[in-house]
Amino acid sequence: MQASDLFELLRDGRPRTRAELAESTGLARSTVAARVDQLMALGLVAPSGGTSTGGRPPSLFSMNPHARVVAGVDVGATHVSLVVADLAGTVLAEAGESLEVAQGPEVVLAWVTRTVRDLLAAHDLRPGDLAAVGIGLPGPVEHSTGRPTNPPIMPGWDRYDVPARVQQDLDVPVLIDNDVNIMALGERQVAFPTTSDLVFVKVATGIGAGIISGGELQRGAQGTAGDLGHVRVARADDVPCRCGNTGCLEAVAAGPALADALRAAGVDARTSQDVVDLARAGDVTAHQVVRQAGRDLGDVLATLVNLINPSVLVIGGRLAGAGESLLAGIREVVYQRSLPLATEHLQVVASVAGDHAAVRGAVALAVAHVLSPEQIELGVRRLAEARTS
Amino acid sequence: MQASDLFELLRDGRPRTRAELAESTGLARSTVAARVDQLMALGLVAPSGGTSTGGRPPSLFSMNPHARVVAGVDVGATHVSLVVADLAGTVLAEAGESLEVAQGPEVVLAWVTRTVRDLLAAHDLRPGDLAAVGIGLPGPVEHSTGRPTNPPIMPGWDRYDVPARVQQDLDVPVLIDNDVNIMALGERQVAFPTTSDLVFVKVATGIGAGIISGGELQRGAQGTAGDLGHVRVARADDVPCRCGNTGCLEAVAAGPALADALRAAGVDARTSQDVVDLARAGDVTAHQVVRQAGRDLGDVLATLVNLINPSVLVIGGRLAGAGESLLAGIREVVYQRSLPLATEHLQVVASVAGDHAAVRGAVALAVAHVLSPEQIELGVRRLAEARTS
Repeated sequence: MQASDLFELLRDGRPRTRAELAESTGLARSTVAARVDQLMALGLVAPSGGTSTGGRPPSLFSMNPHARVVAGVDVGATHVSLVVADLAGTVLAEAGESLEVAQGPEVVLAWVTRTVRDLLAAHDLRPGDLAAVGIGLPGPVEHSTGRPTNPPIMPGWDRYDVPARVQQDLDVPVLIDNDVNIMALGERQVAFPTTSDLVFVKVATGIGAGIISGGELQRGAQGTAGDLGHVRVARADDVPCRCGNTGCLEAVAAGPALADALRAAGVDARTSQDVVDLARAGDVTAHQVVRQAGRDLGDVLATLVNLINPSVLVIGGRLAGAGESLLAGIREVVYQRSLPLATEHLQVVASVAGDHAAVRGAVALAVAHVLSPEQIELGVRRLAEARTS
Repeated sequence: MQASDLFELLRDGRPRTRAELAESTGLARSTVAARVDQLMALGLVAPSGGTSTGGRPPSLFSMNPHARVVAGVDVGATHVSLVVADLAGTVLAEAGESLEVAQGPEVVLAWVTRTVRDLLAAHDLRPGDLAAVGIGLPGPVEHSTGRPTNPPIMPGWDRYDVPARVQQDLDVPVLIDNDVNIMALGERQVAFPTTSDLVFVKVATGIGAGIISGGELQRGAQGTAGDLGHVRVARADDVPCRCGNTGCLEAVAAGPALADALRAAGVDARTSQDVVDLARAGDVTAHQVVRQAGRDLGDVLATLVNLINPSVLVIGGRLAGAGESLLAGIREVVYQRSLPLATEHLQVVASVAGDHAAVRGAVALAVAHVLSPEQIELGVRRLAEARTS
């Protein structure tokens, strides 16, 4: 039983006595006392109210969410959002900037590290308070190394060592993932904290999914899990896609395809946002086009539901702003084509976290790393070394 | 650091000294010695050759695969296979019987428990040597309770408490899963022990998949993950399926559909085995029909590859016996329709474990339970209680 096992018990925030901790773990009280002391020395656990009288040591302990902070960063195609949050995920400070990802990693990451430092300083936090940085990027990422892999809309980023660049300025662990993966983490954090099987589908200029199964984000062997955009849709068999194939979901259901469909019907629309604005304004053609995109998405999502069997299917991304037409189209086909057992308790919902899903997920990624058993044990060992040297 | 953590180190079978274990774990030698004693008392760890001279205690330790045995059971539609194996998965005894699953759980499970007892006795093993039983069933199973859920070909089994019935005769933990899930575990055990992302596709009277992602079997929220059989295939849009829907993969690519297609082409075929026999005998029509089934499977598996990104896609089940035509059809479409990044290192292979995949997987399921940290800690606690009472 390590200090990290004890910390797992305390993560829920409920204060416990040493006796309760000994009871829950079956450990001797002396062992519990030593482990609690280690976690307090790391700052991760703190005495929690109700201290006993008479000068005795504190009797109740809980996780200390204020021990350290992390930064969560969402790098989009044309905008970067950044928050600083505590270990409970509570946002302490935020910033944003219009920046093209196509300006390359040097420009974008210099802004990121400068802004993290500025936010820390503005909130009376020291550089040493920062424990980790989580970053979401709009393209495929090799999670183990933090390097983008052939990202189509990110010239200059291919195989770029993102963590190394960030660590030039901020000496902390840096976790990188693609945007839909962190949106799945953020949505779970914000709206479905107890769900172990959640799929987040982003519908925007591209289409992709972040898959949480068995409680864990599933990235697959090469980190490409969740790529819905280039799955074949029967109805679209002869429609060319920018990937070089035909019949891909993106070629009929992503933002640019919907704008094309609207223009073909004589409605002036150029961007994903135009489509959303028209649908919101009640334009009937826009509603029809969005609903059909929902059905096409539903065709692929019905397969996803059969294969992965999530309990929650979250629809997010800019097109989700078009409202109920998209969800209605998705539900229509998913409930028709998926197994009854798989849809019996399935929720198909619009994102609750919305624009904040990505930064909240980047924070969750960073916090999960900081509070992982490996990192806590590393902290305990360093502490012991520092004391004996 | 618990006894189970130490055991994780020793599971690879390599003998280690106490000093090496202390080195690897950072624990004090006295703690290592106490934990090793616990594991030896449980029989899970044994002295390993090279004992030191002069009457000193043994100096090298490794996992003791012979400490206990488990039973692995594969209940098929018309046949039950059973093996007894040690904790390394080595098969010590086997048995099989022609039994219809439709005869109901009482008949089938009575045979199972009687046969386990008989095999133990015949191999000089005591009932107490049995540590767990793993069972695969040919239908959806609620893994947490071991109860089948609306299994279509298993009358009398719906919601039946399988573990409780087995435990009437064998007082050990009983783990239940559906057959494709245990086939995925068995295939990994036999042929891909280091792979964390493997999908096993069974093509027989029905079609289904067992999905291992991130090293873990993924069952989904309701335990229905991997249900490929009723995914829509574009080419089959108007073909009715026994499930009541139209256009399902099973309606065009499972054994009965291929036999139908052969008869429609004037070839006498009634069962899946007939299709396999004809293809093996070099019948051209059979090859064409099997190859097209491969393409239809490939259509759905291309989507699976995009969504799940496995590194190995294993094709098993009776139809896999038809040979290269099936695999060729699958590869043709998967490599055409899946993302380049997802197929770059993808292997599409016929099952190596073959008919043994299911029983080997049932053994793996049982061994994983017996050697789980939770079970080892339970054993350590019981040992301590027995000593103090």
